[in-house]
Amino acid sequence: MQRTSFRDVNCSIAQCLEVIGDWWTMLIVRDALFGVSRFDDFQARLGISRSVLNQRLNHLVRHGVLERVPYQEHPPRYDYRLTPKGRDLWTVATAMRQWGDRWAAPAGPPVETVHRTCGHRAEIVPTCSACGEPVAPQDLEPVLGPGATDPDLVPPRRADPVEAPET
Amino acid sequence: MQRTSFRDVNCSIAQCLEVIGDWWTMLIVRDALFGVSRFDDFQARLGISRSVLNQRLNHLVRHGVLERVPYQEHPPRYDYRLTPKGRDLWTVATAMRQWGDRWAAPAGPPVETVHRTCGHRAEIVPTCSACGEPVAPQDLEPVLGPGATDPDLVPPRRADPVEAPET
Repeated sequence: MQRTSFRDVNCSIAQCLEVIGDWWTMLIVRDALFGVSRFDDFQARLGISRSVLNQRLNHLVRHGVLERVPYQEHPPRYDYRLTPKGRDLWTVATAMRQWGDRWAAPAGPPVETVHRTCGHRAEIVPTCSACGEPVAPQDLEPVLGPGATDPDLVPPRRADPVEAPET
Repeated sequence: MQRTSFRDVNCSIAQCLEVIGDWWTMLIVRDALFGVSRFDDFQARLGISRSVLNQRLNHLVRHGVLERVPYQEHPPRYDYRLTPKGRDLWTVATAMRQWGDRWAAPAGPPVETVHRTCGHRAEIVPTCSACGEPVAPQDLEPVLGPGATDPDLVPPRRADPVEAPET
């Protein structure tokens, strides 16, 4: 019953999971964001078999997240570099990291980030593109967007009357 | 060679993947963030078998993401409600959604969000907790945090000399 692909599901989270919905894949992306680009370096850091690593790297190349850049001709050797689409996964990696820091890092964050522009150790704060204020999740109301094909994707809120009572 | 658990890996992304590192699990969290709480509603929306759904819900309860709240005694029936730890996954779900919107939604976003506080359809913009400015990924420098147990978790940057040349 396990679906093998979410490609046809009209949901952007499912589309993201189609690409990174596998433990190893997201850790490869994490290491690529750290600047790792060589097969042997990924393998040493992740401790996975060459065949599993090869399969996941091919998956990421096929989905346009990584690209192969030759760095040696005889024998042919490649760097795996993030594409713009791949680099853009930093928001997902950062959200995962900060959630893990808050809920599963009793000794404190293993990794922090310095914002080079201001020079401080900083966290990412989600703010609103319209008003610029920090956003709390209860202030976000999901609505159907222009790409919606299934009106039931956003369910009616529990508190809302699904059908207006006849009065 | 596939590892069955990341529980002992000292990385907050791995800890997050330990909880949500499975396609169905993250889509259950997505629906819970939409307000879905009943077993049958999850099943109808996701179209998965009752046994797979039951297994994933138990996993999320065990990890403190969902809690069971009785709503009927005979026979016993439960709502699955997000805990604060679970609700805090909205940042991960939102980052995934916005990435999918940018890279895998040619007809436009299936779902958008209205920021109730200001009333506008809005995206989440990642900003710096120290200076308040929007953050670009190239401006973030990963550094070891207080919880680091493995100094190699953050690899040396490619441009940096790994060993200082003897001059």
